[in-house]
Amino acid sequence: MSERIVVVGFGPVAARFIELIDPLLASGAAHLTVIGAEPDSAYNRVLVADVGVGRTSPETISLSDTARLAALGADVLLDRTVRRIDRARRQLQLSDGTVRAYDRLVLATGARPVIPYLAGLNPDPLHPALPPGVTALRDLADARALRAVVQRRGDVVILGGGILGLEAALAAAEEGARVSVVHHGDYPLARNIDDDGGRVLAATLRRQGVRLVSGAKAVGLEHTATGEFTALRLDDGRFVSGDLLVLSCGVRPRTELADGAGLPIRSGILVDHSLTVHHDEFIHAIGDCAEVSCLDPDCADCAGDTTPSGLIGPGWKQAEWLADFLGRQLAPSDVAAVEASGTPFGATSGAGGSSSSYREAALPPVVMLKARGLDAVVAGDVSANLWSGHDDGTAVALWADPQHGRYAKIVTRDGVLSGLVCIGMPRTGAELVLLFESGSVLPEDRSSLLPLDGAEEQASSSPNRDPSATVCRCAGVSRGSIEQAAVVGCSTVVEVSASTRAGTGCGGCHADIRGIIEEHFQTAPA
Amino acid sequence: MSERIVVVGFGPVAARFIELIDPLLASGAAHLTVIGAEPDSAYNRVLVADVGVGRTSPETISLSDTARLAALGADVLLDRTVRRIDRARRQLQLSDGTVRAYDRLVLATGARPVIPYLAGLNPDPLHPALPPGVTALRDLADARALRAVVQRRGDVVILGGGILGLEAALAAAEEGARVSVVHHGDYPLARNIDDDGGRVLAATLRRQGVRLVSGAKAVGLEHTATGEFTALRLDDGRFVSGDLLVLSCGVRPRTELADGAGLPIRSGILVDHSLTVHHDEFIHAIGDCAEVSCLDPDCADCAGDTTPSGLIGPGWKQAEWLADFLGRQLAPSDVAAVEASGTPFGATSGAGGSSSSYREAALPPVVMLKARGLDAVVAGDVSANLWSGHDDGTAVALWADPQHGRYAKIVTRDGVLSGLVCIGMPRTGAELVLLFESGSVLPEDRSSLLPLDGAEEQASSSPNRDPSATVCRCAGVSRGSIEQAAVVGCSTVVEVSASTRAGTGCGGCHADIRGIIEEHFQTAPA
Repeated sequence: MSERIVVVGFGPVAARFIELIDPLLASGAAHLTVIGAEPDSAYNRVLVADVGVGRTSPETISLSDTARLAALGADVLLDRTVRRIDRARRQLQLSDGTVRAYDRLVLATGARPVIPYLAGLNPDPLHPALPPGVTALRDLADARALRAVVQRRGDVVILGGGILGLEAALAAAEEGARVSVVHHGDYPLARNIDDDGGRVLAATLRRQGVRLVSGAKAVGLEHTATGEFTALRLDDGRFVSGDLLVLSCGVRPRTELADGAGLPIRSGILVDHSLTVHHDEFIHAIGDCAEVSCLDPDCADCAGDTTPSGLIGPGWKQAEWLADFLGRQLAPSDVAAVEASGTPFGATSGAGGSSSSYREAALPPVVMLKARGLDAVVAGDVSANLWSGHDDGTAVALWADPQHGRYAKIVTRDGVLSGLVCIGMPRTGAELVLLFESGSVLPEDRSSLLPLDGAEEQASSSPNRDPSATVCRCAGVSRGSIEQAAVVGCSTVVEVSASTRAGTGCGGCHADIRGIIEEHFQTAPA
Repeated sequence: MSERIVVVGFGPVAARFIELIDPLLASGAAHLTVIGAEPDSAYNRVLVADVGVGRTSPETISLSDTARLAALGADVLLDRTVRRIDRARRQLQLSDGTVRAYDRLVLATGARPVIPYLAGLNPDPLHPALPPGVTALRDLADARALRAVVQRRGDVVILGGGILGLEAALAAAEEGARVSVVHHGDYPLARNIDDDGGRVLAATLRRQGVRLVSGAKAVGLEHTATGEFTALRLDDGRFVSGDLLVLSCGVRPRTELADGAGLPIRSGILVDHSLTVHHDEFIHAIGDCAEVSCLDPDCADCAGDTTPSGLIGPGWKQAEWLADFLGRQLAPSDVAAVEASGTPFGATSGAGGSSSSYREAALPPVVMLKARGLDAVVAGDVSANLWSGHDDGTAVALWADPQHGRYAKIVTRDGVLSGLVCIGMPRTGAELVLLFESGSVLPEDRSSLLPLDGAEEQASSSPNRDPSATVCRCAGVSRGSIEQAAVVGCSTVVEVSASTRAGTGCGGCHADIRGIIEEHFQTAPA
């Protein structure tokens, strides 16, 4: 009998999972229902801001092959939500009044934007009814609202100085909008970056045309008689006026459905190392809504902070792992053979495949900001002071050239890179990230790490030719895999993306992929 | 008739002048009298501290060929001084009661150490009778006093945080003495260096075993019943005790003899661009006692600060120029031919020779500190703040790695290097000095200037192979000249010094000369 798999949520993580269980569906071993709250099929949510500024289109960022799903007999239920999980009967009550039974339930409900407490905003976090002219820039409807303002070169006010707010700000400013970023602290990215790096970042943002309203605490909205947003009110009496307010105050895992079903929640829905929720073997959770933290109090992997990262990379790894896990449980032997021969995107790549338990990568995340005219990366703990004596083996080295927007702070512990800030030096930043992730001991002369961004070096090829170096952090694709794709004939970024999935996430690695392709065709024997 | 040339002073500048008028003496066109206040013939005063710590000997640093002078019939009068110049009769009254007539008088009286006002020190600056255990480290007698303390690994107290005090401190500490440097401000070299550079410098000095007594104002000496120095007393009540106090508070031109003869004085004895004193064509002044400032109020060369530099390089250039000038005035045609064929050291090299007037180099001096374990260089104006906005075209870039004692501050004005601090990065420092002296526009990516001091780069050869680059700043010898000396067979520093004079001053370039020699013999065809 066919196993009924129901996926709740139709974002990029759900789409990846669905793509990878194709052999189960094709063989008839499983039947799929997908339930999406939005009217659209899955798309690359990371690129919503790019749609909003007109750099790409909703069609281009689509992640779902609806024709294929129809051919496989899957039920795709859009524009509706799940009201309740009936775990005893293993069935779902939907917002349209229907009921769906499941044998396996996969929760991929993602995250919702944090709506700050501001006078004039609906404070119900589960059903935020934002007034006209206010958006959280999370879905395609939000993108359309931004697009309208950017097209008429209007004023965009962004509340929040985090990475997503800055990316949206830079893109909107570059496409012609007048942009203000309203944020806490003396500079944006204040949670990640050090003081001096923050200064260089702020100056660079200003050079890129972004107005910064620093040290600001927003308290309310001003609006027209018909409720249209006109200005943000700050606690010191200032107003920041604009045509559109973009709320970029972070996201929280969307857990209320699981909560209502009595599943254990911390930040996210708690799952063990088989991505199964605690105490219910028929329910799984993946992506932004899932928190991997098992029941073993001595588990080293779960000892630290297990809050969901909010990044696409770990979510995709979870999708790959769970598809593989279910495939092994449900597939008859002939399907296992189909699976081994490979799906279009290679089902056993990445964290999926052979491992018997899913483990989060131990490394703290790397914050990257890539925009025309601004390239910044921050990783690890960068709070150590340059001039303080450190008796714990910490050492700090610094390059600062603020007039040229260049800055690099290198923090080591016993010689191993433990924190970095790099602004305006993209190749140096990439090299430092590699050294950070590999836990390398740095050369004693740290200045040898800097000169990768000179004119000569940029003219020549990539600094690091280690084939195992990660180029696409979202999909976890190495330099070697991309070189291999070029060897077998891929000559554009689109072709490399189709072949390897490199570049299918945030797109920040497109320039690197292009560089590797060019290098291949330059050095290839004629 | 033979022209009577009398030289007053027998230091390195006088010695260089005497060496270069050899053809005039040999031909009988001139007769020489040299009057030296010390019991020793000329020696390389720059290396007195090295004699004091036992690194070299008085014999090695001698600069005078007494046998040659005797053969030329010169009168060398040591251990006596000139009491008075009788300009009307063109004769000198000496301290031994005798009288010497001159046709040409060359004043090379040098500079005296500044003796600070401290309770317990004789305050007469012209005849400082320093108590036992106190020295100014200016002559060989001072060197002997230091040597005795260093040999028994005693306590040396150095008053003054200038370049000479630091060099003596580092050398004495390395040779086993316990050394304290007592200085104004938060760090040594406070007149030259910026705050952050000062911190790195101070930390490096401490690592080299030098104790720093910072922010100190000395007010008096403590001594034994028999007058031996025991401690320096500070104005805050602290005492810095030791076996020897070295006064390193700068030097002043020794001008009292010229002053007594009514010659015009400012900082030094004023001379015009023929190194002739104002209003007396028979008297010249060269070296530390001479200030080149002519009577033309519109002269661009004399518009700025004309205070004598205190460096050996300009003094030697003056000696060369004056010897050439007198040679042209006094030599019969056959001597001119001898001169043209060259003296052992090449009489027409450097600033001497063909130019019709002597001009000081326009560049501000470069402060260099070279010691085992510490390499620092400061030049130009380095006060510009890294973080301030500059609307005068000033830009600042900074590399700081304080835990490894490395620091570089690069100040530009309209892209041209206008100030630099470089500590712990000798090759980078050398490159920056070249760029500073040539007034070069820097590459926009200033970090490309840094990586010269990595392990790989040090293993390979010198970074700058420009043959016109100055290697020996004291004698003004270029890389090309040293390479040429290696081509014609010089295979040691001593041989290169004898052939080119490179390395005969402060000796700071010996490692560079060695490098050029090694490079030559590695790359020379077998």
